[in-house]
Amino acid sequence: MTQGPRKLRPSTRGQVAPFIVMDVMSAAAAREAAGGDVLHLEVGQPSTPAPRGVLDAARRALDTDRIGYTVALGIPSLRERIARHYRDRYGVSVPAERIAVTTGSSAGFQLAFLAAFEAGSRVALASPGYPAYRNILQALNIEVVDLPTERADRYQPTVERLVAAHSGDAGPIDGVIVASPSNPTGTMLDGPAMQRLAGWCRANGVRLISDEIYHGIEYGTRAVTALEADPDALVINSFSKYFSMTGWRIGWMVVPADLLRSVECLAQNFFISAPTLSQIAAEAAFECEDELQANLARYAANREVLLNELPKAGLDDLAPADGAFYVYANVAAHTNDSVEFCRRMLAETGIACTPGVDFDPSRGHATVRFSFAGATDTMAEACRRLGDWLR
Amino acid sequence: MTQGPRKLRPSTRGQVAPFIVMDVMSAAAAREAAGGDVLHLEVGQPSTPAPRGVLDAARRALDTDRIGYTVALGIPSLRERIARHYRDRYGVSVPAERIAVTTGSSAGFQLAFLAAFEAGSRVALASPGYPAYRNILQALNIEVVDLPTERADRYQPTVERLVAAHSGDAGPIDGVIVASPSNPTGTMLDGPAMQRLAGWCRANGVRLISDEIYHGIEYGTRAVTALEADPDALVINSFSKYFSMTGWRIGWMVVPADLLRSVECLAQNFFISAPTLSQIAAEAAFECEDELQANLARYAANREVLLNELPKAGLDDLAPADGAFYVYANVAAHTNDSVEFCRRMLAETGIACTPGVDFDPSRGHATVRFSFAGATDTMAEACRRLGDWLR
Repeated sequence: MTQGPRKLRPSTRGQVAPFIVMDVMSAAAAREAAGGDVLHLEVGQPSTPAPRGVLDAARRALDTDRIGYTVALGIPSLRERIARHYRDRYGVSVPAERIAVTTGSSAGFQLAFLAAFEAGSRVALASPGYPAYRNILQALNIEVVDLPTERADRYQPTVERLVAAHSGDAGPIDGVIVASPSNPTGTMLDGPAMQRLAGWCRANGVRLISDEIYHGIEYGTRAVTALEADPDALVINSFSKYFSMTGWRIGWMVVPADLLRSVECLAQNFFISAPTLSQIAAEAAFECEDELQANLARYAANREVLLNELPKAGLDDLAPADGAFYVYANVAAHTNDSVEFCRRMLAETGIACTPGVDFDPSRGHATVRFSFAGATDTMAEACRRLGDWLR
Repeated sequence: MTQGPRKLRPSTRGQVAPFIVMDVMSAAAAREAAGGDVLHLEVGQPSTPAPRGVLDAARRALDTDRIGYTVALGIPSLRERIARHYRDRYGVSVPAERIAVTTGSSAGFQLAFLAAFEAGSRVALASPGYPAYRNILQALNIEVVDLPTERADRYQPTVERLVAAHSGDAGPIDGVIVASPSNPTGTMLDGPAMQRLAGWCRANGVRLISDEIYHGIEYGTRAVTALEADPDALVINSFSKYFSMTGWRIGWMVVPADLLRSVECLAQNFFISAPTLSQIAAEAAFECEDELQANLARYAANREVLLNELPKAGLDDLAPADGAFYVYANVAAHTNDSVEFCRRMLAETGIACTPGVDFDPSRGHATVRFSFAGATDTMAEACRRLGDWLR
């Protein structure tokens, strides 16, 4: 270097956006530490621990297993059990060889994006949507193509939106991410809508990635897997939500045949293997339906409270919460700055919720997300306080 | 597209090399399934479970903790305990705020590389070395600059090698990875050697990343941390090796101040948090010195067996195993194809070991790695069989 020593700098690609909800969580924790009460409607995780059968399996493993590395794609019996889940639940046949056990859905996204997309590829996704999609894509030098969605389309992508994204001056798109039920809206793609998206992707050589992490948490309508529409779709799922195992960091992918070897070698190098105790314990989760259905009944009751009471409190423009444990609310009548709105709501009422900008950088200034994964009493009390506050 | 529909293809960057040792492990498993015996000198993990104090802490957490997500950089008390470890062990002061708890060292590498390097950056590393470095770098579009090392330099990089890599036609290098003790050689950088490398990196604006995963497993000489030479070095470590917790997937980084915010936001998006049960349990590992030192005494006995008996068996060109639990042996007198050599060794003697091509693509055809993390009897028996086989 002729201009003297270079200075160390962080990379530009690594400067991704934080989760803004983390600031809400910090403020909520500070309020609790100071003796204040907080109604937690901000965090997207079940308030329950893992089911008893899972905890018992973990206890047995601590007594009997060395808890060493496993093969990169996971314990064979767990992969078999997950494959059976597709037969039992969806009537879809998936060979166990195409199941990859992952360190949560987070690892699934990394492996999927690296195996399927080059630096410079273009991937389309719905806005609002889970913020980590766009942030992981950015850090991996993949261009994010926004699909702004509308209530009329249940906040889901449409073929028309994909055609527009695919035929613009920036060139074709290489992939699409769909999420049904969606975070933050809870809305679902029905069978025909999934068929249309999958058919268009297949006809146009566009990789379809389906995030199915909220499957099992549904109210009335059954969620469809992308595998029903296209056996070569790449599916990502997790034990975190329906199975109530967030901190265990355990999930899975269904990998199309052409990506299987890449995913296996990437997993060896990037992860070695998913946490062993969590792998062993997760296999027991499929036998815990009673407890998991009781959780689901609580979510359903919570949802009823919010959908009935939020409008009375002054928030009457709510996304149709087909599944997951979220209500996405339009707060444009009350604010044009959802971050400040949530900050004040916490400070003045003790209700913690998530500003929409986490999910929709361009329009989320006028939306918030309420998570109803907690206790039913908490939901009712939050609606009471919110009504008083907004009046 | 005017030429008809595009065909889906795996990405080129995702087509990284597999760990060749996996093929050895598969062949060893097949041999065992067929009733054959196997002496396991291939896998780089302790044969012991986690210490009792760790298992007890995990049991308590299963009884009392919800095992939900933690904050992205880890449980505060664990970060504090790791910071104290730097004071106790090295006499180095590191604020807990700069400790990031990670999902094993694997996650540490991803976070470090993404936070520090752009696509197209150039990063130098020693050959032979841990294969995941180069494979992760490749998948993240970072150019790997090979530093072929020599026995005279204990198979470690030298400033002369760095100068040559930095001043060539391909442009300057942006980072260097060092590992001491090294995998696969077990060799260490002493204090002055680390000072020279760190000083050169600092003077030239090159990011120093130090993999210290084998610290604690040392035979005579204390391993130095890069933080003793440069408080702004990025250090990666893990509970997998000395603390005997491979399958728990738990490790840590010491992050330089300029990368801390990037690492935190990347960790939120790429991992959410490290496995919670493993975080809780790992904190107890620091109080299990008696058990961990007993493991170390076994490694030391195993090392003596291999260093004394392998030469008698016909392998007398061995790297100086300063630390870790590996002996890296030159087998050029016996083969020019280490993969086939290892395959035949397993088939004809039952000894599983790792071909050098996993660690050194250009020169590893004439080397193998023996892991001595297992039982002392296994080491003695392996040397006996190897002697008979090579004669």
